[in-house]
This record gives sequence, structure tokens and C-alpha cells, in this order.
Amino acid sequence: MKINIERVMRDLKNLSKFNETPEEGCTRYSYTKEDKEARDYLINEMKALGMKVEVDSIGNIRGRLENEHNKDKPLVISGSHIDTVYKGGIYDGILGVVASLESARVFVEKGTKMSYPYEVVIFTEEEGSNFGYNLVGSKALVGKCTLEDIKKVKDKNNKSMYERVKEFGYPIDSLEKCRIREAIKAFIELHIEQGSVLHTEKKSLGLVKGIVGLRWFEIEIEGKANHAGATPMNLRRDPMVKASELISKLPHIVEDIDDDSMVVTVGSVKCYPGNVNVIAEKVVFTVDLRGINPSNLDKAEEEIKERLKFIEEEGFAYSIKRLTEVSEVNMDKNLMEVIKNSIEEEDISYREMYSGANHDTSLMASISPVAMIFVPSVEGRSHCPEEFTEEEDIAFGIEILYKTLHKLITE
Amino acid sequence: MKINIERVMRDLKNLSKFNETPEEGCTRYSYTKEDKEARDYLINEMKALGMKVEVDSIGNIRGRLENEHNKDKPLVISGSHIDTVYKGGIYDGILGVVASLESARVFVEKGTKMSYPYEVVIFTEEEGSNFGYNLVGSKALVGKCTLEDIKKVKDKNNKSMYERVKEFGYPIDSLEKCRIREAIKAFIELHIEQGSVLHTEKKSLGLVKGIVGLRWFEIEIEGKANHAGATPMNLRRDPMVKASELISKLPHIVEDIDDDSMVVTVGSVKCYPGNVNVIAEKVVFTVDLRGINPSNLDKAEEEIKERLKFIEEEGFAYSIKRLTEVSEVNMDKNLMEVIKNSIEEEDISYREMYSGANHDTSLMASISPVAMIFVPSVEGRSHCPEEFTEEEDIAFGIEILYKTLHKLITE
Repeated sequence: MKINIERVMRDLKNLSKFNETPEEGCTRYSYTKEDKEARDYLINEMKALGMKVEVDSIGNIRGRLENEHNKDKPLVISGSHIDTVYKGGIYDGILGVVASLESARVFVEKGTKMSYPYEVVIFTEEEGSNFGYNLVGSKALVGKCTLEDIKKVKDKNNKSMYERVKEFGYPIDSLEKCRIREAIKAFIELHIEQGSVLHTEKKSLGLVKGIVGLRWFEIEIEGKANHAGATPMNLRRDPMVKASELISKLPHIVEDIDDDSMVVTVGSVKCYPGNVNVIAEKVVFTVDLRGINPSNLDKAEEEIKERLKFIEEEGFAYSIKRLTEVSEVNMDKNLMEVIKNSIEEEDISYREMYSGANHDTSLMASISPVAMIFVPSVEGRSHCPEEFTEEEDIAFGIEILYKTLHKLITE
Repeated sequence: MKINIERVMRDLKNLSKFNETPEEGCTRYSYTKEDKEARDYLINEMKALGMKVEVDSIGNIRGRLENEHNKDKPLVISGSHIDTVYKGGIYDGILGVVASLESARVFVEKGTKMSYPYEVVIFTEEEGSNFGYNLVGSKALVGKCTLEDIKKVKDKNNKSMYERVKEFGYPIDSLEKCRIREAIKAFIELHIEQGSVLHTEKKSLGLVKGIVGLRWFEIEIEGKANHAGATPMNLRRDPMVKASELISKLPHIVEDIDDDSMVVTVGSVKCYPGNVNVIAEKVVFTVDLRGINPSNLDKAEEEIKERLKFIEEEGFAYSIKRLTEVSEVNMDKNLMEVIKNSIEEEDISYREMYSGANHDTSLMASISPVAMIFVPSVEGRSHCPEEFTEEEDIAFGIEILYKTLHKLITE
């Protein structure tokens, strides 16, 4: 193994200390004292390797290994984020950052002859924990966020992200300058799976084929509020019963489509007025629908709307609003091939899979060929203190990232 | 027709003016200025008829027509309540009070030879709107509430019912004295249906056979919270899906039992943590189950528990708590017969039915033979500004109440 797992584990441990809620997972919001400490630590590590480090107007950190011969060649980039959700784990995002740093260390210590420059990117504010606005750093890097967006979103103290970034010391007014102008050869992100597929199947790595597209809906079914005692069953128009029928059928709707990237979730249900003894007037619930194939998402959406029409025919009113839509992103086939070869050379167990969660990689895909490597999340836990990945799998993941990057910068 | 519908409509109109939210339904909480005005109005009307009026320690108003010959005979009582829910209607409760008053008027003006004393009872605080504690007046009359109960319950300003009653001027400390000591021959309450059965079937009257028993449950189904994107359908334990399956089957559970008094309602559902993109950790919902036959209620309860066990076998945890239980109350067969004869003599359309809502009659049943007469609620609306009963049906209802009371006091 070329990488040094002790160094990696030490980085993870050190970074886990920059934490607003010690003993209760890890909380590190962007533009806080803890964020500053983590940034300083990583910038020091990169500078110690002789990397050229720049922080852009919104706080993305870009550390580069380049030389006279390769400095005009397309960049090979790897990275992830260091911000966390509230009481999250110490692996989500951070592991990808540490992995890209460790790869740089090995390049340097082995005196790797680099035909292409290598860059570590630490994206700012990926989670959206503090301002409810996510993937901000990667959006800025690809020109998909504006000063207006940054001014609009506010934290719990009603302070805008714009003000917070300014106070933190970054020249946010020149946001435009964040945009990456250089040609990019490849962007690769190592990340924990955040699901339980690899853990369940006892695989050490996941080779990501794509990040599924996402559609969020809000569905309202309106019936007739009535006295729960005085209204016989045959005279009711109870929207709770109809909403339940539909919610219980959603899994069948996606399972009937032959596409195992598809998932559907109802994570929020509200019943009005919400009294034990009153038949609801209306029920409002959300639907989170994901899948890699847009036409299959269309199919599921059509089926949901069809069922809502049946409900309407039974005397109910309904509305369905699309709250959000994010398109699917496919990984670059050539990069996948390079990763696959690296994995097979090392004879590590893996599977190809889709990412159901979104990542900075989605944004990077608009300006670069991209790929992702997953390591298992034990029991699929993530965004919580229990988030965990075995050291052996971390080592496998970073070794493969290193090997892949090595091929890309030396070929 | 013996009763005078103009007088009745005038009473309803006058009482509707004692209202905290004019233009938005009728709000008259117990122990308020509006309550005082309504009480004064009714007491004046009763005194004008020569009735002996007493107000007990908690505010129940009892107006009696009696004479030397019948004063030791068992009482024939009719009445209801004058308090309302927030922005309720002008018929719920009030109509029964006005009906019992109108009956007294006719007895007096026709010089009815009364073999039994007749009493109008206006129960205090039936709705429980202000203190979240209902049927208080009738509970006090039958000895089912204590000073402690009254001290424990508080209004929105955190003032106890005990203090409020005291400030209103009633000697609440002698609550014990509210208890009815006299023998009672019959108690009859006229009330709006609060459901849509009579309106739907175009019947003018409902002859109540019983007040259904009620059981309230809180059911919690616990699964496993997970990322809505990163968790494939086959690796989920989504409690929202299981709760929906159960909720959607509840109507079938009661419909499969051959008992049309049975109803089941889920009026409140909460999904935790309640985020669009997080598979719920647990879902908590209430079940309001009612029916006249306790063994049928048992059957439905067993069936629900059986289904919860199946859900547990699929890897979920559950709990089911009984929040409340109220036993069914059967109406007195002889009184029902007298009412039925009165209705049939007048050739008014009616049906026998169960009351799904609870009434002061339930409490009175513990010390007296009881009966109830329902008049239609247009479209079943009640506890709202739209609450309405046609004048013709009001007239029919009060005429039948009068005729029935007449038979009971003269036989």
C-alpha cells in the first residue's frame, strides 16, 4: 500500500476536534471558529508539502502541486468538504478532503513525475446546515451562484450568508472570481456512501455510476372535516384515508418500474386540523422521488398523478406542486474505467452503484469529467454521531483514489 | 302544533347576540360576560313563567315548575347547555335549552295539570372549550367531578377553573351540593345531530338509541431513519409506509364488523423528524374508535393489535396506548317508546340512530332513565359558523319534545 493510513487517521482525529458539540457528534458550520481552525490545519498541511494554496472569495480552498512543465496542462482535481450538519459525523466530506491531501503527500514524498498539475479542492458550505443553501462552494466554482443568492439566504440569527462570509474575512463581492477558468482533466471525489448497500453486501468500495436525479413534490388532499363520532363511515370524505392509500402504494409504484436506482420517500405528513376527534379537512405530505433515468421518473410522476385523479373522482380535491428538481449526473466512463482497473489490480471487493445523495461532484460535472469512489457507512448511518467507516475500508478507498490520480497525472 | 316557533326563533336570535366573536360564528365560553348575559336572559324568561330558579355551586341553572301536589314526585327533566366552542354555531346545546324552556311555556299557558314536577336544566361548561375539561356541569350533578378536578384545569391565561368560577360569583367550594338528590322520572335532551345522516336521508328527526362508546389510542410505529436518497427500497424500514398501510385499512376493519354504529378516525399523524429527504424514524398517530357494542370495539381493537404484530414481524417496533375510554350509554327503551309514539302521531319523518358525539345525557344516564331527540344539521356542519338547522325541523323537534314531556308529566 502506497498511502499511509496512520497519517490519514491522525488527520481525521485532529479535524474532529474542531467541533462545536464535542461528545455529541461533530458540528462544524462554515464561517465559524471551528471552520477557521480546520481550514488553518489543512492549509498548513498543504503548505508543508510545498503546495500553492489559494482561498477564493467565498472560501473554497485550492491547493496545487504543479511545476514548470505541467502548469499549463489541464488540472487533475480531487476534494470534498469539511463543513458538517448539526451533530453530524467525522467522515462525511472530511474523508474526501483528507484522502486528496494524503494523495498529494504520497506524490511529493515519492517524487512523482507529474505530467499534469494536481489540485486539492476543499469546497465551502456543502451541507447547507447554517443557511439552508447547499453546495455553495461548488456552485461558485462553476458559476452557478450569484451575489444575490448569497445575500438572500440567512442563518438562524437572521444574518445573511453575505454578511457572515464578509465578517469571516473573504472578499465575497468578487464572487465572480471563484469561477474555475482552467481546463480540467478530471475531478474525483471520495466520499462515504451514507447508505447501507456496501455494508450490507460486505463490499469495501463503491464505484459510482451516477448521481440520481431528484424531484420533490408537495401533495395536498382535501376532503371534508367532520365530527369523528357523528359521521358514519359511508358519509365521510376523509383525506387521511386517501393520503394513506396513496403513500402506502408509492413503494409499489417505483418497484414496478424496472430500475433499481429509483427510490421514493414520504418524510413529512401534516394532517389539519390535527385533532384526535375531528376527521381531517386536509392532509399535506411531501414526496422525495429519485432515480437515474428521467423517463422513469416521469413514469412514476405520471402514476402518482393518475392516482390523484382517481382520488379526485371519489370527491376529494388535490394539488401537487413540484418543490425542487435536480437532474441526474452520469459519471465519466473513462474515469470509471481507470478506477475500476485500479480496484481490480488491488483485488478489493466493490460494486458499481448509484449515489442517492447529492455531492459537489454534481456541480463539477458541468465543467469536467467526474467520478466518485464510495467507502461503506457502517449500517448506513450518516449525518449523526454514529457515522462510521472501518479503517481498512478507508485505507482501500484512499489507496484507490491515490492510484487513480497517479495514473491520471502521470500518463 | 302546540309550541310557538316564533318564540323559539326569537330566543335563538337573542341568545346568539351574547357572543364574543360576532360575524364569525358564536363564541360563548362559560364564566364570561357573554355567558352571564345568556344566563340572565334565560333566568328572566323562566322567572316570568313562575318557575322556581336555582343556580348551583358550579353554575348549573335549574328552573322548576312544580306545585303542592307533585312536588315530592320524581322529576321530569329536560335541558342542554349554552356554552359554545370557539367560533361555533348558535344551535349546538342552545337549541335544547330553548326547547325545554318553550315546553315549560306551553305547560304554563295551557294550564297543564302536572302530576310530576318539570325541570329545565342548563348544564354549565359542556364543551370544555376554555379549560379542556368537558361535561363539567352534568358531572357535578351526578357526583362525578371533584374540587380537585376543578382546581387542576386551567384556561389559556393559566387561571384555574376553580378561580374563574369563584370570580364569576358561584360558591364553588360547596361543589358537593350540586349533586341531584331528588328521584328522577326521566331526562330528555333535544340536540342537533352534528352529523349528516338525517340531512342526507332527508329525515326531520332522529330517535337516539344510544351514545356510542369511545376509545382513543395513540399508536407509534418505529422504523429506521435513513437518507432518502442513499437507501434503496429493499434496505428500508420506513414506518411511514407501514403506518399508511394500517391507516388505510382501518375503515375496512370496522366495516367488516356488522355494526353500523362503528366508526374509526385518524385525526392526527406526526412523522419524525419530518424532513422531505429523511426516511422517518417514527410515526405517531391517533385512532378514535367508536361503537355501541363493547365486544365489537374489542374486535376492532384486537384486529388493530394483530396488524401491529405483523408490522413488528417485519422489523418495526410499535406501541399502542389507550388514551381515553368512555363506555357506551343506552337510551331508556320506555322513554324511546313514548317519543316514537309522539313522532308517529304527528307523522314526522324520522329514523332511529346512534349518537357518535357525547352529551350531558351520558352523565345523566347514571342517575336517570334518559332519551335524546336529534334534529338535522344541514350538511352535518357543527362547531362552526355554518352550523344550521331548518326552522321546520326545529319546530318538529320541539313539538315532539313537548308532547313527550307532556305525556310524562301528566300520565
